[in-house]
Amino acid sequence: MNSTLLSNYDQLMKREKQAIILDSANSILHWDMETKMPPRGITLRSLQLAQLTQILHQTATDPKVGRLLRAVRENTDYTSLDNIQKRNVHLVKRRYDEATILPEELVVETARQEAVTTDIWKKAKAVRNFSLFKPELEKIVKLKIRAAELLKDVKGVPTPYDALIDIFEPGVTSAIISDLFSDLRQSLITILKRCLHSCQAIDMTPLHRKVPIEAQRNISNAIADFLGYDVNSKNAGGRIDETEHPFTTGYYDDVRITTHYYEDNFSSSVFSVLHETGHALYDQGLNPQWQYQSIGASCSLGIHESQSRFVENIIGRSPEFWTYFLPKIRELTGPTFLDLNVPDFLRTVNVVRPSKIRIEADEVTYCLHVIIRFELEKELIAGRLEVSDLPKAWNQKYKEYLGVEIENDSEGVMQDTHWASGLIGYFPTYALGNIYSGQFLATMEKAVPDWRSQVYKGDFKQVKQWIIENVYCQGNLYDPRDLVQTISGQEASIHPYINYLDQKYRELYP
Amino acid sequence: MNSTLLSNYDQLMKREKQAIILDSANSILHWDMETKMPPRGITLRSLQLAQLTQILHQTATDPKVGRLLRAVRENTDYTSLDNIQKRNVHLVKRRYDEATILPEELVVETARQEAVTTDIWKKAKAVRNFSLFKPELEKIVKLKIRAAELLKDVKGVPTPYDALIDIFEPGVTSAIISDLFSDLRQSLITILKRCLHSCQAIDMTPLHRKVPIEAQRNISNAIADFLGYDVNSKNAGGRIDETEHPFTTGYYDDVRITTHYYEDNFSSSVFSVLHETGHALYDQGLNPQWQYQSIGASCSLGIHESQSRFVENIIGRSPEFWTYFLPKIRELTGPTFLDLNVPDFLRTVNVVRPSKIRIEADEVTYCLHVIIRFELEKELIAGRLEVSDLPKAWNQKYKEYLGVEIENDSEGVMQDTHWASGLIGYFPTYALGNIYSGQFLATMEKAVPDWRSQVYKGDFKQVKQWIIENVYCQGNLYDPRDLVQTISGQEASIHPYINYLDQKYRELYP
Repeated sequence: MNSTLLSNYDQLMKREKQAIILDSANSILHWDMETKMPPRGITLRSLQLAQLTQILHQTATDPKVGRLLRAVRENTDYTSLDNIQKRNVHLVKRRYDEATILPEELVVETARQEAVTTDIWKKAKAVRNFSLFKPELEKIVKLKIRAAELLKDVKGVPTPYDALIDIFEPGVTSAIISDLFSDLRQSLITILKRCLHSCQAIDMTPLHRKVPIEAQRNISNAIADFLGYDVNSKNAGGRIDETEHPFTTGYYDDVRITTHYYEDNFSSSVFSVLHETGHALYDQGLNPQWQYQSIGASCSLGIHESQSRFVENIIGRSPEFWTYFLPKIRELTGPTFLDLNVPDFLRTVNVVRPSKIRIEADEVTYCLHVIIRFELEKELIAGRLEVSDLPKAWNQKYKEYLGVEIENDSEGVMQDTHWASGLIGYFPTYALGNIYSGQFLATMEKAVPDWRSQVYKGDFKQVKQWIIENVYCQGNLYDPRDLVQTISGQEASIHPYINYLDQKYRELYP
Repeated sequence: MNSTLLSNYDQLMKREKQAIILDSANSILHWDMETKMPPRGITLRSLQLAQLTQILHQTATDPKVGRLLRAVRENTDYTSLDNIQKRNVHLVKRRYDEATILPEELVVETARQEAVTTDIWKKAKAVRNFSLFKPELEKIVKLKIRAAELLKDVKGVPTPYDALIDIFEPGVTSAIISDLFSDLRQSLITILKRCLHSCQAIDMTPLHRKVPIEAQRNISNAIADFLGYDVNSKNAGGRIDETEHPFTTGYYDDVRITTHYYEDNFSSSVFSVLHETGHALYDQGLNPQWQYQSIGASCSLGIHESQSRFVENIIGRSPEFWTYFLPKIRELTGPTFLDLNVPDFLRTVNVVRPSKIRIEADEVTYCLHVIIRFELEKELIAGRLEVSDLPKAWNQKYKEYLGVEIENDSEGVMQDTHWASGLIGYFPTYALGNIYSGQFLATMEKAVPDWRSQVYKGDFKQVKQWIIENVYCQGNLYDPRDLVQTISGQEASIHPYINYLDQKYRELYP
């Protein structure tokens, strides 16, 4: 390798390292804003975040990065870089292209409009009035189409909507997703229909017995213990805090999750802690040799979601986990759950019931909610669906796929914040995550055939080790489709996930 | 005012605003490191802080700032700026001069050596071995002398040590301090001698009754309530957290204090919360019109300390406060303090006993500890005292001023971290703060003559309002000596403080 190439590559990586460190500082300020900041601090915090974002944007779009990228890629010795170096260059280029292709006025206007639309969305949702929301959502869609058209060219993807998806799930197109989702929809509806009758009789009231917040905090710690998410030791690399909406943030040795505690709904925190810890383990388990490099990051939103859903559902709603964990919960809650047995409890936490709200959906119906959003946003960005026709289209699909009647737009098209805050192309990653999780499970089962009996005994170590080696440690070395191929030996496919669901729900509701 | 002047001034202020915002973000990261960060996060955090510090340093030393400063100050219309604008320019220039006069190699080497010396200090203190510490402290002193000589010229102060003091207490020289401190020392020793006999008999055991941490947290909240330091409401601008060493950080609407709780020493947290809240109220109470400007800051370390000591001692160790507050503590601690009466309790929290450790010292002896440090560091920087002779000189002065025998250097010259971490010129501000607090008290008493009866009733509002208007709202409009003159109508003087102590301790121990 010639020294010019190496020197340019090193300069590029040095800048990347600075950006990564600054971005991680930014995350801490966000976390603090959500968890600890005194309420009056919000104006100052907005200015702090805006300033850091501006510095990060300047770093990302610095013409020097463009020059360095060209110098590296056009160097005659470029092919002498190893795969890791080439991937780093590719990732820096992708981000540089994404950051520089959009004119500044569009970026500024979009940020402004996203804030406005989110604000109006909250108000419109509160008063159940879509017509309030409509004109502001229209502006978002328009801005996103403009951005998508510019991004389409630089990314070389078939359609503008593909360019938006590519930001979150690189290399995955709407055509690929359409194929996956149309099969997935049919299979899920089949399983749903089969479960519906048996699930009607399930008594859900045990989930609403009062559990004091302090006991719920102890339950969260017990879950963290089981998963090996260290939040208490002198060498802890994690935290659990409380916010209205649970989230995970962090980088390598400082990763933090949040949850919410409702006295009369303890399972809400149980599954949110399982879910968020799934995310957290991924961020903590990235390849330590790649810290501060572009490849030292998660692969995509879909892969990230595969990890949270794996822990939340495949592990956290399994008979083996609850056989081990229900006694723990009994220990921590005194007499509250002494009458409960594992089979009954398992049915309550796996009840399948079509609902109107995505974030309350069970494992079988969840992806149907996501598929509806994908189908609608695809049409919106293609210009084949008007924002004004969105509620009608939404309600029809809910009727058709889930059999539920949407009575007002606040429980319908206005339930999620994503579109209001400019996240179009993001929803599909939720269902892709579930699909991937099924493929990873099928592969893991071959390597750790007795994983169920291990979990049954409260031992998650070998499963975790498998995920660390096969998923976490791959960082951002591959685009998600290639990662799935590398790990499972096959293309993205719904079959392992459907097999998993089919078998699980046959056993639960014979 | 001509438009070039205005435009240059505005550019200067815009940069200043950005620096202030970034600096406040930096403070949050520091706070998080001390209070919430998972232990493993320390390496990443060091990188984040280093990077922000580097950006802040680049901003502060940007040659554009120098050009803008010259353009503003040499503009023929400069005198048309109002006092606030001129003060802003002065403050920016002061910081620019301080930041640019030192060569980068000196700054880098000093930062490195401070880290090394602090590390060695911890180890040497643990094993009571000054000879371990000595060579590293010598390097610090050498580096500080080099910096002081450069700063002396740009600041136009008489001696290198004056230049170091000026960083923390602008406009105050070692000659001024020497005059104040030599009188202060005599007066304090006189009061000390008078108190010594009466204080011997005081029973200190009530302070060591067990108070559960949770009750101590409630006591802290009650103190915050009394002082109007809002940490709980929806509009709160403050927090109280826990760290080994209490501190205050923040800016305007986001100010945070920390304390420590020892089950068998509840008064430790009581007085640290009073002290830190004194600092916090100052930071919260700065003139809101000046936020994000240089003048929207505290005046000096000495003035800051005057506010913490005012709240901790003048208010927080007064008979009126404890008449009001002891019943509150009884409410929050069940039967623990039912047998205690206010006069007895007051004597325990105002006991005067010479000690070896500054941070444990009472109101009468505290400044003697500080004076010793001032006298020694003055000689060190002047080159008239060698580091190797420091322990002997230290021990002699402790014997002479406080009548105590230092038995090892860990309870002597190695007790504080300041010198190890490069803080030379800082100690005097602790005693100056006490002196100023006496002057402010004397002035406040004229405006709010019945303040004692108000505090007696648990009402701190009018006292606080007086401080807000007379101290906090002046921000950094004046150097400390001018601020004291403006508020009290007289130069810095020890007499009001000595009068306060004299009267208080005559009444306590007649």
